[in-house]
Amino acid sequence: MNVVSLEKALATINDFWSPVIIGELNNQVVKAVKLKGEFVMHHHDHEDEMFMVLKGKLQIAFAEETKVVGEGEFLIIPRGIPHKPVAEEEVHVLLFEPVSTVNTGNVVNERTIENPPRIG
Amino acid sequence: MNVVSLEKALATINDFWSPVIIGELNNQVVKAVKLKGEFVMHHHDHEDEMFMVLKGKLQIAFAEETKVVGEGEFLIIPRGIPHKPVAEEEVHVLLFEPVSTVNTGNVVNERTIENPPRIG
Repeated sequence: MNVVSLEKALATINDFWSPVIIGELNNQVVKAVKLKGEFVMHHHDHEDEMFMVLKGKLQIAFAEETKVVGEGEFLIIPRGIPHKPVAEEEVHVLLFEPVSTVNTGNVVNERTIENPPRIG
Repeated sequence: MNVVSLEKALATINDFWSPVIIGELNNQVVKAVKLKGEFVMHHHDHEDEMFMVLKGKLQIAFAEETKVVGEGEFLIIPRGIPHKPVAEEEVHVLLFEPVSTVNTGNVVNERTIENPPRIG
């Protein structure tokens, strides 16, 4: 059992859109990620996904609307719903999701990261 | 899908040791709770539990040591491990755990809350 500092975990991350696993429990993982720019529209067939914003302002675009998640706020996206994270400026995010979750969901492309590194 | 503010969720809480459910995903819940004082030593037979400190400093006493979890830090306690949260001053905590988790685990007493309210 180790106490994990979000700030220290984030400080180890150099690349945008490259999540690292910082905790695991009940077959779920806690990931930290830095975002900047626009991601790919995708969905997860079997996983609900929680985005908690630690720093900055995250936009999440859906088919017909865009939600804005500010610092100290979170949004849970149910499985099956297409979404596209957009970060106009750098955003730091904590993700809670099942171990099985792949970042690009149903889409497989050069941004897909099948096995994020674990730290902490 | 609603964006949830941690600060606003916490502002609705009047009582210490009375968690409220502020999100649910993948059969897990996100709870917010205010702690002050000393809880009961207990364990959860089937649930790992994550304590993330949003404000203040949380001590978690185990059989042979005490861990300190500061603001912006978290600790995951695996199932089966007896633990006792202690908050010398007021502490605000986010919990991430299975829906089935009862606050006092294997102990049932006047502090047990079987069905926390849901907000947000």
